[in-house]
Amino acid sequence: MTDKQNCYCVIMAGGVGTRFWPMSLNAKPKQFHDILGVGKSFLQQTYQRALDIVPKENVLILGCLAHKKLILEQLPELNESQVVLEPTGRDTAPCNLYAAMKIAQKNPDALMLILPSDHMIEDQKEFVKNIDAALSYAKNQDRLITIGIKPTHPNTGYGYIQYVLEDKGELKKVKTFTEKPTLEFAESFLASGDFLWNSGMFVWSCKAILKAYQSFLPSMYQQLEQVDFNTENEASQILVQYEKLQKISIDYGIMENAENTYVIPSDFGWSDIGTWTALYDVSKKDVAENAILSKNVRAYNLERTIVKNTENKLMIIDGLEDYIVVNTDRALLICPKSKDQEIKNYVNDLKLNKLEDYV
Amino acid sequence: MTDKQNCYCVIMAGGVGTRFWPMSLNAKPKQFHDILGVGKSFLQQTYQRALDIVPKENVLILGCLAHKKLILEQLPELNESQVVLEPTGRDTAPCNLYAAMKIAQKNPDALMLILPSDHMIEDQKEFVKNIDAALSYAKNQDRLITIGIKPTHPNTGYGYIQYVLEDKGELKKVKTFTEKPTLEFAESFLASGDFLWNSGMFVWSCKAILKAYQSFLPSMYQQLEQVDFNTENEASQILVQYEKLQKISIDYGIMENAENTYVIPSDFGWSDIGTWTALYDVSKKDVAENAILSKNVRAYNLERTIVKNTENKLMIIDGLEDYIVVNTDRALLICPKSKDQEIKNYVNDLKLNKLEDYV
Repeated sequence: MTDKQNCYCVIMAGGVGTRFWPMSLNAKPKQFHDILGVGKSFLQQTYQRALDIVPKENVLILGCLAHKKLILEQLPELNESQVVLEPTGRDTAPCNLYAAMKIAQKNPDALMLILPSDHMIEDQKEFVKNIDAALSYAKNQDRLITIGIKPTHPNTGYGYIQYVLEDKGELKKVKTFTEKPTLEFAESFLASGDFLWNSGMFVWSCKAILKAYQSFLPSMYQQLEQVDFNTENEASQILVQYEKLQKISIDYGIMENAENTYVIPSDFGWSDIGTWTALYDVSKKDVAENAILSKNVRAYNLERTIVKNTENKLMIIDGLEDYIVVNTDRALLICPKSKDQEIKNYVNDLKLNKLEDYV
Repeated sequence: MTDKQNCYCVIMAGGVGTRFWPMSLNAKPKQFHDILGVGKSFLQQTYQRALDIVPKENVLILGCLAHKKLILEQLPELNESQVVLEPTGRDTAPCNLYAAMKIAQKNPDALMLILPSDHMIEDQKEFVKNIDAALSYAKNQDRLITIGIKPTHPNTGYGYIQYVLEDKGELKKVKTFTEKPTLEFAESFLASGDFLWNSGMFVWSCKAILKAYQSFLPSMYQQLEQVDFNTENEASQILVQYEKLQKISIDYGIMENAENTYVIPSDFGWSDIGTWTALYDVSKKDVAENAILSKNVRAYNLERTIVKNTENKLMIIDGLEDYIVVNTDRALLICPKSKDQEIKNYVNDLKLNKLEDYV
């Protein structure tokens, strides 16, 4: 067991969740919504999950400046200093370096757990067990550990991690990181038995991750090093430094380059719920395999369709198969489930047509 | 030419327009909406149309008690005495008798033009010409004259009128009234050349129509005869008498029984716009034959579909063919065009499921 006081959880809440439009909007992206209908937003669920692993005061929320109020509203027990704000979104490498330096300034021996804010996890007990294991493997070691998910089907929306099958024990050396594959590749990955889904959850010591940034993103390191973390100057200095930083993901900037990457194969009922179809997949269905996620929906001849309605409005839907129907107070979306990845394109079209108000 | 001071126009505005749900609601049925997007409601258009035929003070609006405020709001130039209110809807025979007796009490020699409040007429000049002709044929004659529309296609949603082809002149003797036919019959009607669509517009003298009611609906006549029309007692007496009256249409109660029925074949671009599909038919289409009747609708792969949106909400619709999509602040309808007659059934289902608030 590791010392909990040394463990920090960084929840990444700066995403825009465009594929969940029109529920997810710039002003209130996916992680702030109760899309699963459980009574808590994704962010609130993730925060709750973290409290089984680290002390409350060791949770940091990484978010956009524009969402500060929203974050503090949803997590009122947080101290304002626990909300780490990016002036602009610059993908996951800069924000993770920011968090690591900020934590290291206070506690150089800290261990870090990085959690995306908008994933679903069904088995909390198993999750905690795996994270605790990862933390113990990260302690006093120069290891970058990811949480890999045992794949259940050839999902083409996820990245994959291939590991060294021969490694004994629960910690496996990573062989390769792979971006979203074609269906053919995904099927062969599943058949091979040594591939896991990349969950985007990481565990490392501050020392290990800062060393990795020095090696692979040295100019980013040098730029942020100039900030006086945990002082009154931090915010204004971040404002200056942040926009100079390279926009790059931590997977691409660090993990795919490092040699000391490990993975813990896990199985705790995980989904990134990245699209309306992913939400459909995990939702309760009626006899016609519809996921009707709201009241006041009356369906006739509807099959394999997901319906979400955030208003009190009544909806009568007749005759659709394999559709996504989402009604919010701002917009209505009706599109085939097969187009779930293209919702981004609709949103881009809105921007191009000066309809940003609806994004 | 007839003396205009003797001509009255009765606009029937008591319908519920269920097939235009969700735009048409009990609280504000079809005739009060600008469904054609011309800047005026159907009622306002019909009123305007009548002013080319009769003096303003000779227009009566037949409506439901519940819509009194709405009628006076939409037609502010009306005197309150021109709004003839039914306590409850009892189909078209009672309200037409009510109007005829009320007019006859003031002017026994009056001629009456009866207009439904929710039809579309494209050629006002031709319309006025036909109505003027009908009025002159009705003057001092015991004739019940209907306006028949030369059919352009085998519509199964309309009633048909067969007339005596041999009659010279524009006034034809009616041979039969026919209810909504099957497609097969409608096709043979069209081929035969002596069938017209029943527009629901009538012209007669007060004397002629009152005589017909005495013959064919004598108990209805006796019940309403007890009312002191155009006095302060009228409303309270109507309240008592009205609910005793038989619920029956004027077509079924009078026209199909009378021998003195005539029709004027007309062609002024008429449609009763009875369904969303009828509205689709008369609407301007885009290249994919969609009738997009509102702003803020973005269509992808949409074909032969009608879209109406009464909110500012943005709508993105992908992949539908031959659909009806209607969004209002109260409800959303998505159904195939082929189900346009079944919208009544959806509405009945709402009533059965205690969702009257949405009707």
